[in-house]
Amino acid sequence: MKPVAFFVGALSRTVALSALLALSLTSQAQAQADPLPSWNDGVAKQAIVNFVKDTTTQGSPKFVPPAERIATFDQDGTLWVEQPVYSFVMYALEQVPALVKAKPALAKTAPFSTVLEILKGDRAALAKLTMPDLEKVLAATYTNRSVEQFKTEVTKWIAEAKDPRWKKPYTELTYLPMQELLKYLRANGFKTYIVTGGGQDFVRTYSEKIYGIPPEQVIGTAGALKYSYAKDGRPYLFKEPKLLLNDNDAGKPEGIHLMIGRRPVMAAGNSTGDQQMLEYTKAGGGASLSLLVLHNDAKREFAYGPAQGLPATKVGTFTQALYDEAKKQGWTVISMKDDWKKIFAFD
Amino acid sequence: MKPVAFFVGALSRTVALSALLALSLTSQAQAQADPLPSWNDGVAKQAIVNFVKDTTTQGSPKFVPPAERIATFDQDGTLWVEQPVYSFVMYALEQVPALVKAKPALAKTAPFSTVLEILKGDRAALAKLTMPDLEKVLAATYTNRSVEQFKTEVTKWIAEAKDPRWKKPYTELTYLPMQELLKYLRANGFKTYIVTGGGQDFVRTYSEKIYGIPPEQVIGTAGALKYSYAKDGRPYLFKEPKLLLNDNDAGKPEGIHLMIGRRPVMAAGNSTGDQQMLEYTKAGGGASLSLLVLHNDAKREFAYGPAQGLPATKVGTFTQALYDEAKKQGWTVISMKDDWKKIFAFD
Repeated sequence: MKPVAFFVGALSRTVALSALLALSLTSQAQAQADPLPSWNDGVAKQAIVNFVKDTTTQGSPKFVPPAERIATFDQDGTLWVEQPVYSFVMYALEQVPALVKAKPALAKTAPFSTVLEILKGDRAALAKLTMPDLEKVLAATYTNRSVEQFKTEVTKWIAEAKDPRWKKPYTELTYLPMQELLKYLRANGFKTYIVTGGGQDFVRTYSEKIYGIPPEQVIGTAGALKYSYAKDGRPYLFKEPKLLLNDNDAGKPEGIHLMIGRRPVMAAGNSTGDQQMLEYTKAGGGASLSLLVLHNDAKREFAYGPAQGLPATKVGTFTQALYDEAKKQGWTVISMKDDWKKIFAFD
Repeated sequence: MKPVAFFVGALSRTVALSALLALSLTSQAQAQADPLPSWNDGVAKQAIVNFVKDTTTQGSPKFVPPAERIATFDQDGTLWVEQPVYSFVMYALEQVPALVKAKPALAKTAPFSTVLEILKGDRAALAKLTMPDLEKVLAATYTNRSVEQFKTEVTKWIAEAKDPRWKKPYTELTYLPMQELLKYLRANGFKTYIVTGGGQDFVRTYSEKIYGIPPEQVIGTAGALKYSYAKDGRPYLFKEPKLLLNDNDAGKPEGIHLMIGRRPVMAAGNSTGDQQMLEYTKAGGGASLSLLVLHNDAKREFAYGPAQGLPATKVGTFTQALYDEAKKQGWTVISMKDDWKKIFAFD
């Protein structure tokens, strides 16, 4: 080797070494940066970090191939606030004035008359709304229109509506620790899904924007569709007033198989409606993580349900039996009060 | 700059230039390498290449953002052979001897007795099988078992079964030009889906292996599921004998909205069962491509249907009306005889 060539060679090696060193420092920095900064150190955070490490480390007995890294999240009460009324229900209630404007007779017809009282601020009227009443309001606002029209209506509402407590858009009421968890999982090759009791078409309008979850990864309660033709011959899909999938309770694992065809290795929920999904995930045999969010922070968010010694609410039922089941099956219970340093990005 | 440093600098620039040149040559080579080598030059191939170029070129008026690049493919007759009997039906027929072994009385009960005659080689018996007969056989072989058991049974069959003409595994009877198209689309950021009239759980057992399409991107005819518990308390999903989604005709766009929630920009089919999907895709407004495969190559594959002046077959109905619709709506008709240089990888 000639001296100059040697010099160049040595320099190249130095450059190469520097580059390697830089790369190595970067990856160390990445490894050391906390992917879950809004989580306090504790059992829940440790369980998540261990699960991700175990399932993504080649050669680990709990290694899960990337294609099988399916993580499913309930939405209401798990990814964002569900009190005092689920936002997919709030949407239906707040569409009622427009319905009444179009058909004035509805103003004196139950349950629409009751909804008008609720919207005027009558909380007692809310308690009067039965499940069949609610189904009538949901049918009137979610169905008998094209999928495009529904999407337009929801997009408009979600951009303008504000929640009753913080007076902020619902889309700002997502839990920051869960947003971090979604990103952390995706950065580790997991495919993240929403599996919601809420309307599938409703959640799909904003899921990509606020959670980074595309519409095809949203499973929810869905109605039948009817392929139809407009007067100009253009085909469209009409939302029929007929339930196809009730994506609550047993409907969650059923919907997961229908739409994904794989069993999740991770699932998160917060109520009895999520029990079967958490159970199904845990029963997969290999590595799995079932997370259950406990709403026990009345100051920063809400505290509710029998597991807190509080009366059952109409939404987000967290019973003592569910809590016992979590302990028995080894699900990880997330205490909002203790495990979450920050709850909202605006905190 | 000292001479040695200058020399090193010049050399580095030369190395950098060479590297750039090499990169540029590689990308030119990649751009020039034909992504569809089994396609003859012609209208169909040109339409595909233009569509991909238009939808993926930033600034093109037909540009489609990556998230919206959804391409849906029918399976039977579009991605693989469907004659003389759809393989998902062949599966059901070939399970009948095992059914009869378990319940000997079935040997003398229609339609199972008819199926036994067909399997003995009686082609005339095949014609005797009515649609209600077929539904009985499908219900008996696709339902009343867990999703795991069904998957095990199909996986075993698909590994062993051979088609009647080539005596090869069905999984080798995929069309090489369509395999190239799937890869070409994915290389350009498209998400490829199967939208089949066949059983969703059936196709999902092999879709990833033979088409590179994961189970969550397979939409098909699906039955209701029942979340159940085994004797040991372990939860499982039971396949009920009840239809949930008939993924044919109007069921295709309906299934697409249910499972994807976006309108495809590209779709491919080969029969009247795909008409609504092709129509729906074309009606999206922006860039779109609807492809219709015409089976007109009796020598290398099959030629069938009224559009060939041939009698209608029980499978893969390609009517003159469908052909006229394709012309009217500007779908691209693929002539297997003229557009495909090779049909199978083994050709």
